[in-house]
Amino acid sequence: MPKFFAHPSALVEAATIGAGTRIWAFAHVMRGAVVGPDCNIGDHAFIEGGTVIGRGVTVKNGVCLWEGVTIEDHAFLGPCSVFTNDLLPRSPRAPSAADRYAGKAWLVKTRVCEGASVGANATIRCGVTLGRYCMVGAGSVVTRDVAPFTLVSGNPARVMGRVSMEGRRLRRAGGKWVDPDSGRLYRFRGDEILECPK
Amino acid sequence: MPKFFAHPSALVEAATIGAGTRIWAFAHVMRGAVVGPDCNIGDHAFIEGGTVIGRGVTVKNGVCLWEGVTIEDHAFLGPCSVFTNDLLPRSPRAPSAADRYAGKAWLVKTRVCEGASVGANATIRCGVTLGRYCMVGAGSVVTRDVAPFTLVSGNPARVMGRVSMEGRRLRRAGGKWVDPDSGRLYRFRGDEILECPK
Amino acid sequence: MPKFFAHPSALVEAATIGAGTRIWAFAHVMRGAVVGPDCNIGDHAFIEGGTVIGRGVTVKNGVCLWEGVTIEDHAFLGPCSVFTNDLLPRSPRAPSAADRYAGKAWLVKTRVCEGASVGANATIRCGVTLGRYCMVGAGSVVTRDVAPFTLVSGNPARVMGRVSMEGRRLRRAGGKWVDPDSGRLYRFRGDEILECPK
Repeated sequence: MPKFFAHPSALVEAATIGAGTRIWAFAHVMRGAVVGPDCNIGDHAFIEGGTVIGRGVTVKNGVCLWEGVTIEDHAFLGPCSVFTNDLLPRSPRAPSAADRYAGKAWLVKTRVCEGASVGANATIRCGVTLGRYCMVGAGSVVTRDVAPFTLVSGNPARVMGRVSMEGRRLRRAGGKWVDPDSGRLYRFRGDEILECPK
Repeated sequence: MPKFFAHPSALVEAATIGAGTRIWAFAHVMRGAVVGPDCNIGDHAFIEGGTVIGRGVTVKNGVCLWEGVTIEDHAFLGPCSVFTNDLLPRSPRAPSAADRYAGKAWLVKTRVCEGASVGANATIRCGVTLGRYCMVGAGSVVTRDVAPFTLVSGNPARVMGRVSMEGRRLRRAGGKWVDPDSGRLYRFRGDEILECPK
Repeated sequence: MPKFFAHPSALVEAATIGAGTRIWAFAHVMRGAVVGPDCNIGDHAFIEGGTVIGRGVTVKNGVCLWEGVTIEDHAFLGPCSVFTNDLLPRSPRAPSAADRYAGKAWLVKTRVCEGASVGANATIRCGVTLGRYCMVGAGSVVTRDVAPFTLVSGNPARVMGRVSMEGRRLRRAGGKWVDPDSGRLYRFRGDEILECPK
């Protein structure tokens, strides 16, 4: 007996759904997808075989995830955020695209690291890595890697600031960044995180 | 017996759906949502408990509406337009987000005023008010309030002009704006509407 | 007996679906839509009556197509790409919009030419033509015509380069453009294609 919940209208063909995960109305999780425990998969979401999703991930309504997309633990994928796995797609049914889709060389992977948040209706171009606990603003188009704990926004998305693990804007304090609520400190060097609360 | 229509594949759990409203295929209206009369809710739409929708509203396909979003009479929400209710979302399943989601302080409301139009695939950042009969261009990302009868477009959305109640571009005529078809006049002071047809 | 495949959860009301076409879960193809042979219509797609789709077209998940939209042979419509058919939409249920929607003068057509690709979550403003084998980047908002074999991106979308029929970036070589893999040549004059592989 499965230990996850699926709404009666959901289609769950994958064999590997973690305990405590809930899959809501009209969602479709295909064979070969891996979904960890304690996730929440919203209405009308689509998860293709070859997608890998960790523990405690929130996949909001209407999100499509594809082969080659990896979502690490506790990430948040906002409603109608869109992922891709082909930089220059053609219809595989076009004769001129037969060579392109004979193998898998067209497939470009995407990684959403632990705790990262993708805003509603954001578009993530394949090939990027969204760093730990970064945040992508709603409606943004991400075309390059996003550093950990970094807020990006716009089309193309640009750095707008830093955010805490808990989802608060950080303020600069000398060479460090501070969460004004908790007082906890973060330190960065370029795109690298040197110090953060554990 | 209900006086609204729901497609056989739609899920309607809300108790308060107005007469004459039609809810189409694979749409889901959750318990606690309030939908007025004479609305049209397109395929694959999702309306969460806590959403309030007025009279004669058009919700096109794939729109998701959340607790805290209010849609006033005769508004138009274009296909796949996306709303939000959390400015800095994290996965509620992340231990570091437990405090954030213990209460409802994270919830930020959005108001779409009477007759406003939201273009297809537009993103509305929570906290904004879309003024009466304003119009948001397709694919725009709205990050601040929009004045009545005002057309905005882009990411972030900026003012592009003025529109009439009927959906026509207004032309400047001295200190007023005129609908070139009907000759009816509109007058603004900044974001305020001073005169418009009733 | 139909020669196309429809997932048991799909709704297919159209009478004109070509042989070999596959229509996936929770998709809805309405009466009056025309879909050619060998197409693939993804989950949660919606195809309204009055849409015309050619041969070998790929319609990825969540795409909505409307009356007035024509998709020619072998085009690719990326996941959650969004089309429109009304430049200044209002709720048809608003009394002030009754005149607007009494006829069909509001309807503005869109044409996606043979082999064109529309990236994921792109928005196509109605009235435009996407030229043969052009490519629209993911998350872009297209507000004007796109020339054949041309790559556009951004909001509003701007020309970023040229692409081959097969989905490769072309490189400038004197007055021509060359596919670096195949060596095949393309020649343009402004928005016109003068020479390309057949």
